[in-house]
Amino acid sequence: MRTESTIVFSARPELDRPILIEGLPGVGNVGKIAADFLANKLKAEHLATLTSHHLPPQVLVDGDGVAVMPSNEMYYLKDVGTSHLDVIFLIGEFQATTPDGQYIICEDMMKKVFLPYDVSTVFTLGGFGTGQVKEDGRVLGVASDTDMKERLEPYGVTFSPHEPPAGIVGASGILVGLSQQYGIDAACIIGETSGFFVDYRAGMRLIEVLERLLGLELDLSELEAMAKQMDEINSKVMKYASQQRSDNLGYIG
Amino acid sequence: MRTESTIVFSARPELDRPILIEGLPGVGNVGKIAADFLANKLKAEHLATLTSHHLPPQVLVDGDGVAVMPSNEMYYLKDVGTSHLDVIFLIGEFQATTPDGQYIICEDMMKKVFLPYDVSTVFTLGGFGTGQVKEDGRVLGVASDTDMKERLEPYGVTFSPHEPPAGIVGASGILVGLSQQYGIDAACIIGETSGFFVDYRAGMRLIEVLERLLGLELDLSELEAMAKQMDEINSKVMKYASQQRSDNLGYIG
Amino acid sequence: MRTESTIVFSARPELDRPILIEGLPGVGNVGKIAADFLANKLKAEHLATLTSHHLPPQVLVDGDGVAVMPSNEMYYLKDVGTSHLDVIFLIGEFQATTPDGQYIICEDMMKKVFLPYDVSTVFTLGGFGTGQVKEDGRVLGVASDTDMKERLEPYGVTFSPHEPPAGIVGASGILVGLSQQYGIDAACIIGETSGFFVDYRAGMRLIEVLERLLGLELDLSELEAMAKQMDEINSKVMKYASQQRSDNLGYIG
Amino acid sequence: MRTESTIVFSARPELDRPILIEGLPGVGNVGKIAADFLANKLKAEHLATLTSHHLPPQVLVDGDGVAVMPSNEMYYLKDVGTSHLDVIFLIGEFQATTPDGQYIICEDMMKKVFLPYDVSTVFTLGGFGTGQVKEDGRVLGVASDTDMKERLEPYGVTFSPHEPPAGIVGASGILVGLSQQYGIDAACIIGETSGFFVDYRAGMRLIEVLERLLGLELDLSELEAMAKQMDEINSKVMKYASQQRSDNLGYIG
Repeated sequence: MRTESTIVFSARPELDRPILIEGLPGVGNVGKIAADFLANKLKAEHLATLTSHHLPPQVLVDGDGVAVMPSNEMYYLKDVGTSHLDVIFLIGEFQATTPDGQYIICEDMMKKVFLPYDVSTVFTLGGFGTGQVKEDGRVLGVASDTDMKERLEPYGVTFSPHEPPAGIVGASGILVGLSQQYGIDAACIIGETSGFFVDYRAGMRLIEVLERLLGLELDLSELEAMAKQMDEINSKVMKYASQQRSDNLGYIG
Repeated sequence: MRTESTIVFSARPELDRPILIEGLPGVGNVGKIAADFLANKLKAEHLATLTSHHLPPQVLVDGDGVAVMPSNEMYYLKDVGTSHLDVIFLIGEFQATTPDGQYIICEDMMKKVFLPYDVSTVFTLGGFGTGQVKEDGRVLGVASDTDMKERLEPYGVTFSPHEPPAGIVGASGILVGLSQQYGIDAACIIGETSGFFVDYRAGMRLIEVLERLLGLELDLSELEAMAKQMDEINSKVMKYASQQRSDNLGYIG
Repeated sequence: MRTESTIVFSARPELDRPILIEGLPGVGNVGKIAADFLANKLKAEHLATLTSHHLPPQVLVDGDGVAVMPSNEMYYLKDVGTSHLDVIFLIGEFQATTPDGQYIICEDMMKKVFLPYDVSTVFTLGGFGTGQVKEDGRVLGVASDTDMKERLEPYGVTFSPHEPPAGIVGASGILVGLSQQYGIDAACIIGETSGFFVDYRAGMRLIEVLERLLGLELDLSELEAMAKQMDEINSKVMKYASQQRSDNLGYIG
Repeated sequence: MRTESTIVFSARPELDRPILIEGLPGVGNVGKIAADFLANKLKAEHLATLTSHHLPPQVLVDGDGVAVMPSNEMYYLKDVGTSHLDVIFLIGEFQATTPDGQYIICEDMMKKVFLPYDVSTVFTLGGFGTGQVKEDGRVLGVASDTDMKERLEPYGVTFSPHEPPAGIVGASGILVGLSQQYGIDAACIIGETSGFFVDYRAGMRLIEVLERLLGLELDLSELEAMAKQMDEINSKVMKYASQQRSDNLGYIG
């Protein structure tokens, strides 16, 4: 009688073996930045909304003071770039609150949306927190099989044994694992990030990979501006923290 | 075979598209103070009791030494004030112990009580902990849509973008979100409070909004007395804490 | 297909509206000490075993090095003392690991054992941790209704408004609450204890109440011996702790 | 509709009342070391894979950069050593994330694999963390009954009352408990270990027991090499820690 999750479709477009691009919140919000930007920039259209007992028990408030139920949202695009691929985006503000909730939500979307739409490839986006602030960072991949590796390497994705060492936790991991079980090609594309803050530059590196993959060239200047704003906040925080340390030393001394 | 929640009706009154007023425990117990006061002062009659596996596994003890099972209680009133509205109150000592329990209990009441009674509007009451002790505080609203905002602003409810910043957690949030899904008008009405203690004055500010909404004028002197008692306790705690601090400084010095 | 709990009967005695005496582990193990002692001393016979997903995921090891699955065990006695009451005991080494597990296990036993055996009264035994080491302590009661209070007061049970202030958590509480729902007389009988250690004396005070209730007189010297052994351990711990404190002071000084 | 766990068979060999040897991760990974080594050394063949909502919500990354879904894996061997026993191994990188998940996964494998294959005896392997680094350590047993004790003692397994004192937590415990319920002979065979690091020597002591039991003689030099490597790491850590301690003392002084 009770349905743990509910998926409501707002449109029933015909899609030709679409690829899925997932970017839910995670380490440095790297995957979320990339997927939100693409869906928004390319004016993806709304496909479906998942709400679930396994998302946090609350509402958020939007810019109008209107309540927004936690959800995972699916958008679609047809005939993208020179690849002419159809695309489904999976984005949202939350992932499930419990381990089994993570599996349940991913399986629900797999069975009710991705399998019926005959998704050809699943790309999940994520961040890999290295604990080190660096100018540059790799884009790592974890593939559903070795063919997938060879398919992604030309786009600038590095595959490295046992990296990330702790694996990929959450929807980005499970969707790749489920894809293996259902025989769907899949990969997680992961931007290296310190993990200490929202990392727009790592997000941009993921977008660059997806641009090549989809045959697109996009204006990323908005994200560059966000990254610079973040740099300023960070440098203030750093200055403040180092000031605090010397003050404290003075006090102790 | 097993029912996670049980709702037992003690009366089956005819109600004309009642509004729901929810005031379960939360930040500063602001919503609970307001809803308990109204239900009590207006001599609301008992409608139904929900008990559930998702409430804490215990009993409370009443003033007679008699056990009281954790529950959510529903009361009703007909033809209230100059608004002539019928009202259902949802009150209790506990909310669910787990995230999905929160959803499950709210959906149970929605499906078994609020939808069958054709509730016209859901008002959930809550507190917004600002971390600052202030003389005054706003009554904030989070609406199910922009029409609802316009309906509530004349009663002294302020709508502010992205406030509260963390959204509304628990039954007060979920019931607004579920109302959106079922097409019921809804709003959470939230009293600003420090969040450090049970805040009768913030509760009184919510009652004043509801008085206007229902066309009522009530004697709030009991709550004023409770607020003063709380002030005294707080000032003693403050004095003690500041004494402790200077004692400690002396010790360190 | 899956059964969360399994109840296996080892006997199907005819019992005449038995009372239930529950003594699962809890604060100071007060209830467990009393129920284990009575069931053992009176040579109660095995009735049924509950195993469940909601008990801890492990086995214990007995005195023979043989594995023992976590369970709740039910024993029975016929025609006890001058009361001529039939009795079911509910004892075990564990309670459920989660809040809803607590409800599920108690309801399972209620529906599959206590209701079919037409239990006339449920007595749950517990401890109330006061945080103070005292020579003496009250036996408090929390009743299913005021009649039950009057029935128990003559046996030396004190009923006090809103005591214990936090209510009764776990099986001792839920079984009283469920009894109210099913129309069974019930009370929780609670021994005051410091809550710092296994309290045999508080357990003995509960047994004395049950002796009066059942019309029995038992030799409690074993428990007295255990209590004395505990006293010695405690006094050693105290001496050691106070020694440590003065050593530390010396070190700091 | 939803299946919490999925077991997929890759082979359907005929096995003659096989014994089960379980070695999932646990204290010091003692059981895992022994079971992985045996399955690998004896070239056991793949039987079945369990994936489940109750395993961690993630994927691991293998040496090719390919995703690996968390799973419990079953392998089989026929006619092993001079015992001529058929064997099923249960190994994997994870156990369930929750208490009831532990029961659910073990029962699933029991009902869908071990009972249909008419498993004659269940041997679960584990570690018992004593908190003390010792040259030597016992191999302790916890049996399903006293016959099982007598069967295992000749192979060098010690049975000691109430040891391990906290029982056996996780799959190694539950599988023995479930075996008792289903009337299958079972024992947990446990290597004493400090519990501070991955203990290859404790694993080797378990393997020696299983060699005798299966009538085998294996070359353990790989494990001896791993143990020595571990010794070196430990001695470096020790040296570093003791250096840190004296540095700190210097600083305080």
